[in-house]
Amino acid sequence: MINAYAAKEPGGKLERFEYDPGELASHDVEIDVESCGICHSDLSMLDNEWGISEYPFVPGHEVVGTINAVGEHVTSLKVGQRVGLGWHAGYCNSCGTCESGDQNLCSNATMTIGGRHGGFADKVRAQATAVVPIPDGIDPQSAGPLFCGGITVFNPLVQFDIKPTSVVGVVGIGGLGHLALQFLNAWGCKVVAFTSSESKKKEALELGAHETLNSRDKDELKAAAGKFDLIISTVNVKLDWNLYLSTLAPKGRLHFVGATLEPLDIGAFNLIGGQRSVSGSPVGSPATIKTMLDFAALHDIAPVTETFKFDDVNEAVQRLRDGKAHYRVVLTK
Amino acid sequence: MINAYAAKEPGGKLERFEYDPGELASHDVEIDVESCGICHSDLSMLDNEWGISEYPFVPGHEVVGTINAVGEHVTSLKVGQRVGLGWHAGYCNSCGTCESGDQNLCSNATMTIGGRHGGFADKVRAQATAVVPIPDGIDPQSAGPLFCGGITVFNPLVQFDIKPTSVVGVVGIGGLGHLALQFLNAWGCKVVAFTSSESKKKEALELGAHETLNSRDKDELKAAAGKFDLIISTVNVKLDWNLYLSTLAPKGRLHFVGATLEPLDIGAFNLIGGQRSVSGSPVGSPATIKTMLDFAALHDIAPVTETFKFDDVNEAVQRLRDGKAHYRVVLTK
Repeated sequence: MINAYAAKEPGGKLERFEYDPGELASHDVEIDVESCGICHSDLSMLDNEWGISEYPFVPGHEVVGTINAVGEHVTSLKVGQRVGLGWHAGYCNSCGTCESGDQNLCSNATMTIGGRHGGFADKVRAQATAVVPIPDGIDPQSAGPLFCGGITVFNPLVQFDIKPTSVVGVVGIGGLGHLALQFLNAWGCKVVAFTSSESKKKEALELGAHETLNSRDKDELKAAAGKFDLIISTVNVKLDWNLYLSTLAPKGRLHFVGATLEPLDIGAFNLIGGQRSVSGSPVGSPATIKTMLDFAALHDIAPVTETFKFDDVNEAVQRLRDGKAHYRVVLTK
Repeated sequence: MINAYAAKEPGGKLERFEYDPGELASHDVEIDVESCGICHSDLSMLDNEWGISEYPFVPGHEVVGTINAVGEHVTSLKVGQRVGLGWHAGYCNSCGTCESGDQNLCSNATMTIGGRHGGFADKVRAQATAVVPIPDGIDPQSAGPLFCGGITVFNPLVQFDIKPTSVVGVVGIGGLGHLALQFLNAWGCKVVAFTSSESKKKEALELGAHETLNSRDKDELKAAAGKFDLIISTVNVKLDWNLYLSTLAPKGRLHFVGATLEPLDIGAFNLIGGQRSVSGSPVGSPATIKTMLDFAALHDIAPVTETFKFDDVNEAVQRLRDGKAHYRVVLTK
């Protein structure tokens, strides 16, 4: 049996919930959970914001733990190995997208917290292909958020072949943004944090930003016209995106890893004139997660976390709901 | 003196207009005009749609002709050479964008038909850097439209490193689209023309499309979900762009070389889920124009044109206004 924390209804409190996972599938592994980050998408799913949640709902897709069992066809992982599990708990492994190494874009990928139960539990299961060993040099206590928040901001640097000579802006200095600043600094880029908070300004500079820009000051934004090769937006509020587009250099890219459901209302001529792109991406593939972990280990990159005991999961969730997490909340045993 | 055709006011008829161009600037050349294409942007400027036109206004930025004089500092071109002149009549040649070979994105570039007089004339002048020799194998009679319409659809293939293994859709089979089909076919791509006209369907297949797709049939569009690596839109009407986004493969790109002033109202999650991009671009750099001309000569690519005498310029303009041009109108002596 697996002892988990589940909500019985949208927005419900998390309560102890025991379930029988049945026999271990032949390509799956079972992980003894040591810690699990809480991501904004856990809240979105908990509240059924996207209309796809099933209840009882067990959140948790930033899992760190140790393999305790492997299915009969699993050869890539061993019992006792320390691993991480993120947004995806498996892929079809047979479509062209999977074959090309873009498993994270597989249209038949399964979610760790959809159609199965997540990592707010003593154990969790996933397909071995979606489970990534944690290399030496990564602190397992704080590693959980790398598996969703971290890979989400690291992946575009790989996908769009971002050059170390680029000037990159990060919009939203929170769970994702504070990791983006660290990755981009180590990537060699000139890093600019968009923030309107004085306290975050200081922290952004410590995390790797070379400059900050007051995102609420339209004059400061206008003065940055033509500056950025890339802007990564991690926020889920609507901003004046055409104004942000004007801060892009020729050939620049405005990239979304967070967003609202409202349309982006982009002016086409703002794209055409300077050969600019607007794009988005989700989490990364297993290979890119491995690359990220090695890069993070080499450059001492780690999430800044607050830890709560699993038993205090509702307080932890409330902390995130209140926007007070600094910068990422992790549940530990 | 230069004998041109000019409109005295927005939307006005073109009338004979003589002007004194003064001494030839040291970095400029003067071209004896043999022919000049008419582009939709000539009409937009003639009608002052973009609010930047000056009158008397001389249209014409798809010029083919012969150099009759060169400024004292011009070493790249010689009198008697056959050349073409497109949207830009000069660049600053000193900004980072120009230094990088992206002169077409230079924010101080000058337009052939803005701040100076265009190619509906017996002679026209431009900076030598913006004037490109026409190689053997290009028919000068029909080459004019390559210098704006042609380079506009060729340029994204170079800029975004489009692979010959890509599946590419072309929206709008007109002045730009009919050239895009030819370029993409020679590029090795699988080419699909979006069209709702039976007559254009047949012609699109002759021009290089491997398939056509009825763009007015939502079911056909839905059935094409996940198909395209690139869609190039040449139209200036608003379509259901989120539906077009759904026809993109993972990592696909919806690229605009034409557009409306209305915002694109793109759903961010349509970008994020499949790592998709939306982008735009204007004409190309002189180096890319040269590459295009060599590619067109090698692959026998040429605009399909209707010719009118310069004296019949108003009939020619009306033909384009009526949407009857098949596919590009060229004025000849």
